[in-house]
Amino acid sequence: MTKERLQAQTDKALAMYERAGIVLTSEEKKAIEVVDFTLGKIDRVGLQLLVYVNTDRVCAKEMVLTPGQTCPEHKHIPTNGMPGKEETFRCRFGEVYLYVEGPGKAEDIHARLPEDTVVSVFHEIILHPGEQYTIPPETWHWFQGGSEGAVVSEFSTHSTDETDIFTDPALVRTTIVEG
Amino acid sequence: MTKERLQAQTDKALAMYERAGIVLTSEEKKAIEVVDFTLGKIDRVGLQLLVYVNTDRVCAKEMVLTPGQTCPEHKHIPTNGMPGKEETFRCRFGEVYLYVEGPGKAEDIHARLPEDTVVSVFHEIILHPGEQYTIPPETWHWFQGGSEGAVVSEFSTHSTDETDIFTDPALVRTTIVEG
Repeated sequence: MTKERLQAQTDKALAMYERAGIVLTSEEKKAIEVVDFTLGKIDRVGLQLLVYVNTDRVCAKEMVLTPGQTCPEHKHIPTNGMPGKEETFRCRFGEVYLYVEGPGKAEDIHARLPEDTVVSVFHEIILHPGEQYTIPPETWHWFQGGSEGAVVSEFSTHSTDETDIFTDPALVRTTIVEG
Repeated sequence: MTKERLQAQTDKALAMYERAGIVLTSEEKKAIEVVDFTLGKIDRVGLQLLVYVNTDRVCAKEMVLTPGQTCPEHKHIPTNGMPGKEETFRCRFGEVYLYVEGPGKAEDIHARLPEDTVVSVFHEIILHPGEQYTIPPETWHWFQGGSEGAVVSEFSTHSTDETDIFTDPALVRTTIVEG
């Protein structure tokens, strides 16, 4: 991703946080992460997020999905002798289409079926502001922003993104910034 | 507390959540807890809160302090073989005066010194919207809403309020509703 693109994506996230009424400090605004999973298709596959806190026991983040943007399918496995990450998603603004393991078919989902990344679970949970869902450890899941995008709070155990497993082996949870 | 008083306090909390831009479902609005610690002085000593999630590993709450209201001094001790609760307070609206163990004198604090409940720690942290502080387990702490009150998100390990220890032995973490 170019520096210009990274800045543009950060600006979009800042505008979404503001629209959701979420106040950030100036240091936090500079710490927003833009993740394209090295796919280079941030409009369609990616995530913007801010980690509020990540201790050995507890993690809280504020995530932004732009309209139609998909966070690719992954799961959280046991790491450093601890069970995999358990996470609760709480929608604060917009709409998020969340898919986890369970009954559901690809042809029935309300999200746009991603063309750029492999997904295999289709049990649908649609979250509107004030609605939330808890994803157990080691559960495949992916999610997508609705037509206005979404701001989603995540409350979880310690976050170890570097050990996430992706369904699509092409993905890496990082962003390479060029130039 | 009378039923009328409980309802009035719930309404105050709802208004503060709305002012902070926090969206709650109708079920959540009915689940708001008003705690007066059985002191019967809710304007001065108490707390309003909503538990979003409380699993074995993670808890998230949204707390409201009315202007000048104090949550009394307490600490979280090891419970059921687990270390005491670790919690991060993040101010979303208003101002919160937080006091924890550490350097600080009663005469220097910016909060009103509570007359109705015993406090013994005076290391001051003042949180404005977007600011946060992590309180380690087994740390004495108390906090008070500023002139406009405060809305405070709490991200923590599993919550076991029933094992909280209060500095003031007269306090109980419950509310007796009459009538």
